[in-house]
This record gives sequence, structure tokens and C-alpha cells, in this order.
Amino acid sequence: MRYHRFLAPATVAKPIQTITSAQIAEALDIDPTQVRKDFGAIGLVGVGRVGYQVEDICCTIRQVMGFDNENRAVLVGAGQLGGALLAYPGFDKYGLKIVAVFDNDPAKIGRKIDGFTIKSIRALKPFIRKHDIELAILSTPVEVSQTLTDRLTSVGIRAIWNFTPTRLTAPPDVLIRNEHISLGLSELIYYLKQQRNNT
Amino acid sequence: MRYHRFLAPATVAKPIQTITSAQIAEALDIDPTQVRKDFGAIGLVGVGRVGYQVEDICCTIRQVMGFDNENRAVLVGAGQLGGALLAYPGFDKYGLKIVAVFDNDPAKIGRKIDGFTIKSIRALKPFIRKHDIELAILSTPVEVSQTLTDRLTSVGIRAIWNFTPTRLTAPPDVLIRNEHISLGLSELIYYLKQQRNNT
Repeated sequence: MRYHRFLAPATVAKPIQTITSAQIAEALDIDPTQVRKDFGAIGLVGVGRVGYQVEDICCTIRQVMGFDNENRAVLVGAGQLGGALLAYPGFDKYGLKIVAVFDNDPAKIGRKIDGFTIKSIRALKPFIRKHDIELAILSTPVEVSQTLTDRLTSVGIRAIWNFTPTRLTAPPDVLIRNEHISLGLSELIYYLKQQRNNT
Repeated sequence: MRYHRFLAPATVAKPIQTITSAQIAEALDIDPTQVRKDFGAIGLVGVGRVGYQVEDICCTIRQVMGFDNENRAVLVGAGQLGGALLAYPGFDKYGLKIVAVFDNDPAKIGRKIDGFTIKSIRALKPFIRKHDIELAILSTPVEVSQTLTDRLTSVGIRAIWNFTPTRLTAPPDVLIRNEHISLGLSELIYYLKQQRNNT
């Protein structure tokens, strides 16, 4: 995963064709032997001083990670953040395909957002069942996030991308990934405060 | 920091007045003695079985962390994500105050976004110098993120909140906090792929 994160932008910023395990190792601050071992494990073999084809590495990692599959998801919560997530252009690279958007606000239901007609939260469970959705993106207010998580997991959601600042409880076979972006902010602000105190 | 993250939403979801170190310890899966020690270090003392006033804890942590200061920041990159960050209502709780928005796109410069007139990237350095800004939020395309980081740090930016999927290089006294939200997505998708393979 770290390899892909390093190489995918590298190919965008200044397109390079090949890269050696030593170059990758240096950039990621790991051992070159480890790079060759990891790559070998997924069938990638480098050529002498030339190294690896960057495109090969990215292709293979995409396959291994499942980014080439279509990963359909529902978005729950059509607020500011939900809207931003819908509009974000980078997610299709990971095979993410948002297929429906839900909200509980009567003023929002039926309105269009980024090409989607916002559906009532009441339609959430039947929709997930019918379309066999496994991934949900949660960008709702804190108050309803746990209730919704319970609902989502009860109908087969197996992974939740949580953008609410809540600690969610879910069955052990459901993966919850928290994006507490405010946590990053608080770290920066604390750092600035310390710096000010030191000067 | 973890305490605040746990308690701040708790006060929103279902307002509670008091909480014991044992309750906090259980929720965060740490030792109650550690909680009392940490709280003691910032001057918080609990009362017998009643515990701590939640409001006291939050107030004190806010003070210690620097959330009560005004933390002025520039936003660099007025794209979709930049717009979402501007509109996000939760950041003012941390004292964050975005004071100006910059972009290099002539089509955007001069236009309004969420009450801000987008400024040219050429005005970035003088603006930071003049207003003594220490915090920058970076939501630009990958290609320009390192160049901008160099520019930002050369005029006194001490903390960068990086929303670009790039590994940025900066002087050692500059804190960079990366929000690679796509990384979370890739983790979820890999999990789903593994689950599918197992069934």
C-alpha cells in the first residue's frame, strides 16, 4: 500500500518509466532487500540496474489491492462533507463507485446533488439488500452515526468509511476506517502553540 | 488529545455532566490510573465517585491544546476539496480561522468562494509575511505541492495541513500533517477484496 501511495503520485508529478528497488527503498526509508522481497511476493521481478517498470508495479498493486474491481458504495449524509466526497475526482482510481446518496432531511430528499437524487434514509436498508452493497460512506451528524451503523451492518455492509468524529461500534467482521480529519488539525494547532511558548 | 476526541462528541451526542476516570479508561481501553495521572498533570482533579465535570475536562484540554487561540491559516488551492474545507463547519472549534484563499488558476482568481475572494498565488508570500501567518492548508494538485511548500516555509509557515497525496519535504522545524484520505479508502477496498476471496 505504501508503495502505491509513493509511486502513483510519482507517475503524475514527473512521469518516470523505471525505478530501482534502491530508489524506492531510499524514498520510503526501508531496506532495498525488503522492497525486492515484497515485490517478488506479488510476482514483480526487477531487471539488473534498470529496476522495475513503474507501470508494472502500479498495475500489479492495483490488482492485488482490488482497485480494478468495481467497489460500489452508498453515501449516507448529504451535507457539506458528503457533497465534497461526491465531487472528489480521485476516488474512481480505487474502483470506488458511489451508487446512491441518502439523507434524513426532508428538505434534501428528492433534490439533486452531483447527479444523484437524494433518497430518504428509509430506503437505505432495502436498497443495500437489493443491490448487494458492501461499502458505506458515513458523513452524517454525530447524533445518528451509531444508529445508522447498526442499520448498515444489519443488512450486509462489511466496510464503513467513517467521516463522523464518532467511535463506532460494529460486529467484528465489519471494518471501520475512521477519517478524523479534525485530529490532524488539533495536532497542528498544538504544535504551533508549543512553538510559540518556546520562543 | 484522545480524551478530547472522546469527550467532545460525547457531550454533543448525549450531554453528560460528569464522568469517572474508570468510565473514560474503559471507553479508551487504558488504565484508570493513567487517566488520573494525565488529568492531574493539567490540573484536573476528580471528586470521589462523581468523577470529573465533562465541561471542565473539555475546557482545560482546549486551553492546553491551544484551541482557544485564534489560529489563522491560509488555504492554498480553491478546488473541490478546498471548497469543502472552507465550508466545513467543525473547524472553528479548534480556533482555526481561514483568512485568505489562493489559487493559480486565472479563471478562479477574483471569484468568490464561501465569502472569500480568491487571490492569485503570486500574492501568497507577501500576504503571509504581512499577516504573520503560521499555518497553511494545502489542497492543490500534486504537481505544484512541493514548490508551494518551499514557498510557504520560506516566508515563515510553521505547520502545513497537507491534503495532497504527496510526500512533502520541509525544514525540520515545520510540522507537516498528511491527510491521505485515499489511503483509508484503499484499506477498505483491500479488506472487501480479501473477504470476497475467503467466501
